[in-house]
Amino acid sequence: MGSTALDSIKTPNAENPRLLGGSASHAAIAASFFAPVKLVGVVGDDFPKRYVQLYRRHKIDLRGLQIARGKTFHWAGEYEINMNNRRTLTTDLGVFETFSPRLPQSHQDVPYLLLANIAPALQHHVLDQMRRPKFVIADTMDLWLNIALADLLKLLRRVDAFVLNESEARLLTKEDNLVVALKKLHRLGPRYVVIKKGEHGALVSCPTGLFLAPAFPLRKVVDPTGAGDSFVGGLLGYLASQGGSVDAHLRRAVIYGSAVASFCCEGFGLTRITRVRRQDIEQRVRLMEGLVHF
Amino acid sequence: MGSTALDSIKTPNAENPRLLGGSASHAAIAASFFAPVKLVGVVGDDFPKRYVQLYRRHKIDLRGLQIARGKTFHWAGEYEINMNNRRTLTTDLGVFETFSPRLPQSHQDVPYLLLANIAPALQHHVLDQMRRPKFVIADTMDLWLNIALADLLKLLRRVDAFVLNESEARLLTKEDNLVVALKKLHRLGPRYVVIKKGEHGALVSCPTGLFLAPAFPLRKVVDPTGAGDSFVGGLLGYLASQGGSVDAHLRRAVIYGSAVASFCCEGFGLTRITRVRRQDIEQRVRLMEGLVHF
Repeated sequence: MGSTALDSIKTPNAENPRLLGGSASHAAIAASFFAPVKLVGVVGDDFPKRYVQLYRRHKIDLRGLQIARGKTFHWAGEYEINMNNRRTLTTDLGVFETFSPRLPQSHQDVPYLLLANIAPALQHHVLDQMRRPKFVIADTMDLWLNIALADLLKLLRRVDAFVLNESEARLLTKEDNLVVALKKLHRLGPRYVVIKKGEHGALVSCPTGLFLAPAFPLRKVVDPTGAGDSFVGGLLGYLASQGGSVDAHLRRAVIYGSAVASFCCEGFGLTRITRVRRQDIEQRVRLMEGLVHF
Repeated sequence: MGSTALDSIKTPNAENPRLLGGSASHAAIAASFFAPVKLVGVVGDDFPKRYVQLYRRHKIDLRGLQIARGKTFHWAGEYEINMNNRRTLTTDLGVFETFSPRLPQSHQDVPYLLLANIAPALQHHVLDQMRRPKFVIADTMDLWLNIALADLLKLLRRVDAFVLNESEARLLTKEDNLVVALKKLHRLGPRYVVIKKGEHGALVSCPTGLFLAPAFPLRKVVDPTGAGDSFVGGLLGYLASQGGSVDAHLRRAVIYGSAVASFCCEGFGLTRITRVRRQDIEQRVRLMEGLVHF
């Protein structure tokens, strides 16, 4: 569950209007390589049919995707030359302004739930409708830390895992050292905390200890939009495919998430990742084993 | 071979005047945990005896350390709150102004040579006096990229390995992507290139491929001065202790370098690292194995 959007993305080299985007779209496609996915979100009546077909090609269950009168959420952003800094040009909430997720009966028993980046109030609303999920991950962004902190803090008491990036971790904990920040984040509730560091990988803290996960080194980053969503989607999809103990599979799940995210960065929006096969992901995971082995 | 200095280091929490410092001091102490070390450098007649004793306690051969009339090289710097940005307050070259390294006979056959950070002209001068070193590493800093680039580029054609940090790699190659920067750095000569990324570890590129080395996650960084010198000193010391093929031992050597550098950061100057025992380093290396395993 998360945002389903149209993204217009400018980079120093290209301009791409109205790509399929949103945290739920990226996460759902990433997870679909590993396990069946049920998407929850909302689009407007302007939502292109080809994007519905794209979801369907990835066998994503769309019964939880509402089609509302009005415009699909539209985000426009621009990346600087080094692809690390981005600037939001436009945010048109469209049908998201009045969105209230309603989970179909069939969705309420799902064992693995991703509350992808979206307003914490909506994340709460979805969680309220679930029976007894086995493992719940929440993602977020700096915006909610600034304008919906109370809601977010309440959410953190209700989830198993929390994923956020380096600067968000520092902002939320007021702590520069990430090892110390992890401790503080655990105290907010989640037993599992993942701090994403982009090209530097991720720090994963869980009951069995700390894991330093690498990022796959890319020669060319075309568009990092959605990389974090792909990462967490791939991570949860892999966990769901393995079942059993989360602790036993979490490290490899993070590596699969990292591999999927690396493909995401190699094309605009979902253009690259939707051409990837499971065996391409497996190959990149094997390469990552070789890259960190000593 | 490199600089031997007195460092006055200010951080937000403390002030430490005239600590033993310099690239050669840090690298020599780090290497001394693994192999016998011969130090080449220069100090003034104001150089405290206790620092000579400190070198001796680490069994460092001081026949290549000149004691010249005048003042020891003195550097004063200040770190900002997050310990990542530092500002130079003073640089008094002292006896380094007229330093010309002369290698004793006993030093000219050494198989493993570290040209630690110092003016590239002095690095050349030492290399000129060596017979046939088996493996030569050069380190550098941004200053030489700006004021002695031609000398540095000539040096890169003469060494096996080149170590530099992330921002220096970008400055030298004019390339933001570090994977691409590595290729460009190889084209300048060295078969081995190590890009240091501080708390994010290191990228190591060698004939057998790429290695993503972790940094040991520290809860508290007291003083990062000399961490890069410790890293490369530990790395070369470990390689020297293993002998045989560099490729067979390089990855573990980088991990040992990283472990030693982590201790360096936990105290001002050399205060922490000089209280460490070999078994402490071994323990941290084992912890690092656990931190990256998946």
